[in-house]
Amino acid sequence: MTRLTGENRIIRLLQERYQADSSWLEKGIGDDAAVITPRNASEHQVITTDMLLEDVDFRREWTTPRLLGIKSIAVNLSDLAAMGARPVFYTVSLAIPPGISERWITEFYDGMTETGISHDAKLIGGDLSSSESKIVISITAVGESVNRKVLYRSGGLPGDALYVTGTLGRSAAGLRLLQAGCRQTRSRARQQALDAHRRPEPRCEMGLWLAQSGLVHCMMDLSDGLSMDLPRLCAASGVGADIHLESIPVFHKAVLRDGDPVELALHGGEDYELLFSVPNAGRKLLEQRYPSRFPGITMIGEMTAKAGTIMISGPGKKRRRLPERGYDHFSGAGRG
Amino acid sequence: MTRLTGENRIIRLLQERYQADSSWLEKGIGDDAAVITPRNASEHQVITTDMLLEDVDFRREWTTPRLLGIKSIAVNLSDLAAMGARPVFYTVSLAIPPGISERWITEFYDGMTETGISHDAKLIGGDLSSSESKIVISITAVGESVNRKVLYRSGGLPGDALYVTGTLGRSAAGLRLLQAGCRQTRSRARQQALDAHRRPEPRCEMGLWLAQSGLVHCMMDLSDGLSMDLPRLCAASGVGADIHLESIPVFHKAVLRDGDPVELALHGGEDYELLFSVPNAGRKLLEQRYPSRFPGITMIGEMTAKAGTIMISGPGKKRRRLPERGYDHFSGAGRG
Repeated sequence: MTRLTGENRIIRLLQERYQADSSWLEKGIGDDAAVITPRNASEHQVITTDMLLEDVDFRREWTTPRLLGIKSIAVNLSDLAAMGARPVFYTVSLAIPPGISERWITEFYDGMTETGISHDAKLIGGDLSSSESKIVISITAVGESVNRKVLYRSGGLPGDALYVTGTLGRSAAGLRLLQAGCRQTRSRARQQALDAHRRPEPRCEMGLWLAQSGLVHCMMDLSDGLSMDLPRLCAASGVGADIHLESIPVFHKAVLRDGDPVELALHGGEDYELLFSVPNAGRKLLEQRYPSRFPGITMIGEMTAKAGTIMISGPGKKRRRLPERGYDHFSGAGRG
Repeated sequence: MTRLTGENRIIRLLQERYQADSSWLEKGIGDDAAVITPRNASEHQVITTDMLLEDVDFRREWTTPRLLGIKSIAVNLSDLAAMGARPVFYTVSLAIPPGISERWITEFYDGMTETGISHDAKLIGGDLSSSESKIVISITAVGESVNRKVLYRSGGLPGDALYVTGTLGRSAAGLRLLQAGCRQTRSRARQQALDAHRRPEPRCEMGLWLAQSGLVHCMMDLSDGLSMDLPRLCAASGVGADIHLESIPVFHKAVLRDGDPVELALHGGEDYELLFSVPNAGRKLLEQRYPSRFPGITMIGEMTAKAGTIMISGPGKKRRRLPERGYDHFSGAGRG
């Protein structure tokens, strides 16, 4: 899952070279998930896949088998949430090195299946194999639309308001804590940061609600950080964006001795919050109707007609281009 | 995809502990693929997933990116063939270490997508990420039934005739050649062995035909070798088997200086041929109707009422139990 240098370019190349074209294929390569319609089915099917590699995407000593199982399914469910799909089932391929116990395996599956079930996603199969020395996890998760309504990255228009769910930078703060040797804590804020990193909560209910609201033009989940993901949303929609620094729902709590929470919110990854656009005329209705039981939503800026140009401004700061510094450039120490 | 020691036992454990139960789920953990029915869909969907790890399941120096792409999708399509499903689409997660060129990536995808298309399977999405030092490939392939007819490992009955497609041991002979340093050859037989190992041909057409014939009770594909896979078919069907050594369609050609072709046919893996059972009353009809354009089928024995007991007999040899010595015990040098 850790991004490749030049990944955007290679994905574009794959998209141009291998994009399939079929009557049943609603959306192929290039969104958070693919969308198809099974023969004579009443709903679209939404399919996503993600691979996690030990010492690239996670470190065994920073987590537990249970938390790893939770995170593995959560990052896939987050892609379904980003399309507004209802999770249905998933398969998992697990490769394990010598020395991993049966207890490790069952704790991993326990965490994964309990989290799956809590979002109505059922484990239906997979593959179990040996690796040389590292754990590899690959999950494919499948959801279905409700009333055939699915949200894509495309569909945003100039003038749309840009929103995010929850707060940003929390998971990156958790990763920093782990890198600094903090694995347990009595501080509530620090615990929230560790939890956000080790057991993220996919925004399935919110994604489904937003898709059903009829008020949202486009949506994606934030996996590589706002500064990497917002340009992708804008590129798919053929627009630009203006972001207001002071509006970003930063994970303020001073959990780190050093490190700027605003930087973490912009460039940290793995928030698994939703980023979406709403036409200006729908903003009021959205804010009125958005259920108070969900984590809040915050408007962080708007889409503009300047395709590909992502600007950021803030009080006392010059309006400037937002540099793309998401996860692959973030830290040499891996993603945690 | 290389089997874990004790894999059968762990799969049983997962099956008991995590088997989901839903009205849309026709078959979960424990067959070649899972089977579901999407909401109001007219056909079943068949879903399989397989992971290939460098230096466990393949060696970069023994293959080419193109052949690796072909094999990666072929082993997944073989699981769909084993259910009698028509391939429809797949997703691929690819993790690549530093130093892999863009050309490598496109050759891999070229091989994969061309093989996919030749079986009507389309690439619809995936995940591209960085690994530390080894290539990891994980594919999930999805097919659909024709007239809702799917074949399982269960369904075999005592007295059924056991058949295989093609010949057995060819891929294992190819692996032996590669291990002995032979990567190119002018010998036609050796080339067949190398091809069987490096670019296996999934039996999709045959699987579909067999499922539609109405003459087959149960089916699976041979990925770990007859001596590992036949007990799985029998366990799922609650039967035993009697195998006739002299009937096994051995890859006879003397491609190896040492090594017994019968041993390779019994215990070598990755043949990706189909193993299936036919009631005695249907044998004649099957052999009459089976299209001559397909690789031949051979009856190798029969199912018996002695659940779990797999016997083998041959001319001049004492009838004995068939020992399970499939791929994970086969060679310390990996699967090639």
